[in-house]
Amino acid sequence: MISEKYADMTTKGSIIREFAQYASKRAAEIGKENVYNFTIGNPSVPVCPEFTETLERMLKEENPLTLHGYSPTLGIMSVREAVADSLNRRFGMEYTADDIFMTSGAAGAIAHAIRCVTKPGDEVITFAPYFPEYVPYVDGTGAVLKIVPADITSFQINFDAFLELLNPNVQAVLINSPNNPSGIVYSTETIKKLAAILEEKQKEYGHDIYIISDEPYREIVFEGTDSPFISSFYDNSICCYSFSKSLSLPGERIGYVAVNPKCKDAKLIVLMCGQISRFTGHNCPPSMIQLGVAEVIDKTADLSIYEKNKNILYKELTNMGYECVEPGGTFYMFPKTPIADANAFCRMTASKLDLILVPGDSFMCPGHMRLAYCTTTEMVERALPLFEKAMKLAKEME
Amino acid sequence: MISEKYADMTTKGSIIREFAQYASKRAAEIGKENVYNFTIGNPSVPVCPEFTETLERMLKEENPLTLHGYSPTLGIMSVREAVADSLNRRFGMEYTADDIFMTSGAAGAIAHAIRCVTKPGDEVITFAPYFPEYVPYVDGTGAVLKIVPADITSFQINFDAFLELLNPNVQAVLINSPNNPSGIVYSTETIKKLAAILEEKQKEYGHDIYIISDEPYREIVFEGTDSPFISSFYDNSICCYSFSKSLSLPGERIGYVAVNPKCKDAKLIVLMCGQISRFTGHNCPPSMIQLGVAEVIDKTADLSIYEKNKNILYKELTNMGYECVEPGGTFYMFPKTPIADANAFCRMTASKLDLILVPGDSFMCPGHMRLAYCTTTEMVERALPLFEKAMKLAKEME
Repeated sequence: MISEKYADMTTKGSIIREFAQYASKRAAEIGKENVYNFTIGNPSVPVCPEFTETLERMLKEENPLTLHGYSPTLGIMSVREAVADSLNRRFGMEYTADDIFMTSGAAGAIAHAIRCVTKPGDEVITFAPYFPEYVPYVDGTGAVLKIVPADITSFQINFDAFLELLNPNVQAVLINSPNNPSGIVYSTETIKKLAAILEEKQKEYGHDIYIISDEPYREIVFEGTDSPFISSFYDNSICCYSFSKSLSLPGERIGYVAVNPKCKDAKLIVLMCGQISRFTGHNCPPSMIQLGVAEVIDKTADLSIYEKNKNILYKELTNMGYECVEPGGTFYMFPKTPIADANAFCRMTASKLDLILVPGDSFMCPGHMRLAYCTTTEMVERALPLFEKAMKLAKEME
Repeated sequence: MISEKYADMTTKGSIIREFAQYASKRAAEIGKENVYNFTIGNPSVPVCPEFTETLERMLKEENPLTLHGYSPTLGIMSVREAVADSLNRRFGMEYTADDIFMTSGAAGAIAHAIRCVTKPGDEVITFAPYFPEYVPYVDGTGAVLKIVPADITSFQINFDAFLELLNPNVQAVLINSPNNPSGIVYSTETIKKLAAILEEKQKEYGHDIYIISDEPYREIVFEGTDSPFISSFYDNSICCYSFSKSLSLPGERIGYVAVNPKCKDAKLIVLMCGQISRFTGHNCPPSMIQLGVAEVIDKTADLSIYEKNKNILYKELTNMGYECVEPGGTFYMFPKTPIADANAFCRMTASKLDLILVPGDSFMCPGHMRLAYCTTTEMVERALPLFEKAMKLAKEME
């Protein structure tokens, strides 16, 4: 008999997907250029040419049996070494290849990391606003996801609410900075305070508590933003990375787990990831893509357009009266909606203006809307009058 | 705290890996050409040139944002269509794209399929000898794997033992033909008998029972072998395929689930696979590899060397007195060991002759040994005197 659990899920739509599908439908009806689609976090700048050149060279020169051959479960050794070396060079860390596990993007990394450090019934804390797929990543392990409400004045951590949720069943804290959807980067002060609390609670509870740090937007940080390397502030830290956004390779599903070598179980956790992947049938990321990213490990796509778009949108929207915490990175911003009901506001802008935004409710933060400005700057500029109209129409809704 | 379950697993070695690692160690010591390594099922012929040409062309001509862009969770629509069309053309089926879910190899396909049709505590039956990774694939879902002992006279199905194991808790039967490790292909007669039994039991138990058919060796079938397309004989059938062996792309992790359109829940099961992949963080296989295999969907690497190697090994080994059921496909054969203790025999050939084989105990079929003859023919021929010596040395062991 088919599994009721998964069958039931197929009938439950995601709001993000619903708005994205509406945008696609409208694009088919009235032309893509007439739909102002800010729904999807899909990179809008091409991968750096060196990646393409590397793949072309490998396809031409390498023995296909090696190029397309089995990767070891933990990843190709030279690739794991390249990742460790890059992190050490850039962030003053001391990773070795034995601390690195290659994954299918940050999604795979988080799903593995949570399985490593929890057992069914344990608690994992995360902070609103957060990426809604955290729910299945945690649920799939049998652990329970607990949510700290957002500090909507800064989108840094709401520490009072965090302290209230902490208890001996908490085994991990899942954070995402730079953050989807707020665009905020946790400051050094925030990370130090978080680390200090967790160190104290580890002693109090008599067990380790891990920071699982979801960092796909690490390379997209804007000028003047304090952007600490989180693992350097806390020993029991597991960095979950994806090359999807930095290299504009979201479809190639490539990322890694990097376990802080100061964590006493670092090497064991990496070996455990290898065991976990056997259970999901997800043995290792594709060999050719592993080899390709290793060759361009310190490069990125030209990410400057995201900062340019942010600058325009932040300046113009705040001038229009939208309230917004200025993003420090990513390609998202998360203004307050002019009316409290973000769903109603976003449905209105979609139906009346073909301006498609995602309500903050999807990210456990009502009264806000997410703009994914990984679009052309021309589209951003053409959308500005619509944001102005939306503000006026919102006043009529009140 | 780290998960004891996965931590414990890191200390448990696989026998296959142990013998493979010994082969690598000896290769480093005495040179690869002096080690007769029959341990690993890694293809030994390159991918067809059309695949390489397709990737080269796409890298040159396609927009990198499309080429490397997100795949939908279920797979890229044009790729799913190409898979359905190919299966229909070749096997007279009526799949549509909606019956196809793209996966990371057969491993991902099986892990998804089992999660679709079982809940924790349900039983899944498989037949010895079998691929040992079936254990984690099934365990990971909470279902229980039950083993039908081998029919060592034919390596077809031991139906008497199968009938004894069947009970209302059985929700799926997991089969692998052409078979790793025996090399045997289930005959039309075997498949018809299996289908008839399951149809009767579905009525008796009042619920569906699925055949999950693991088919990575489907394209490696030798002359004169009866090789039915399993799903055409049973409606509730889920075909799990990998391009790893047919195209020699094991590292690129690409395969699919094809749910028989005659199964009443086919479309739902495909949607469920999409939900399941969210829980494991394994969202979809790499876009570029999906697009690449779709372009060469009916092609294979030049697989003829496997039949050539089989013909030499089968003829010569049986002449030497080894007892073996002749393989109908794959690149494996599974002779009886000359002494009952296969572990002792394989350790002896490894240590005394650098002839590295895998004991059948790994495949729940003691008294046998697996030869993976995906090697050069020259290596096969040079190994023949060692098999002869091994037979003599075995007699001294008795």
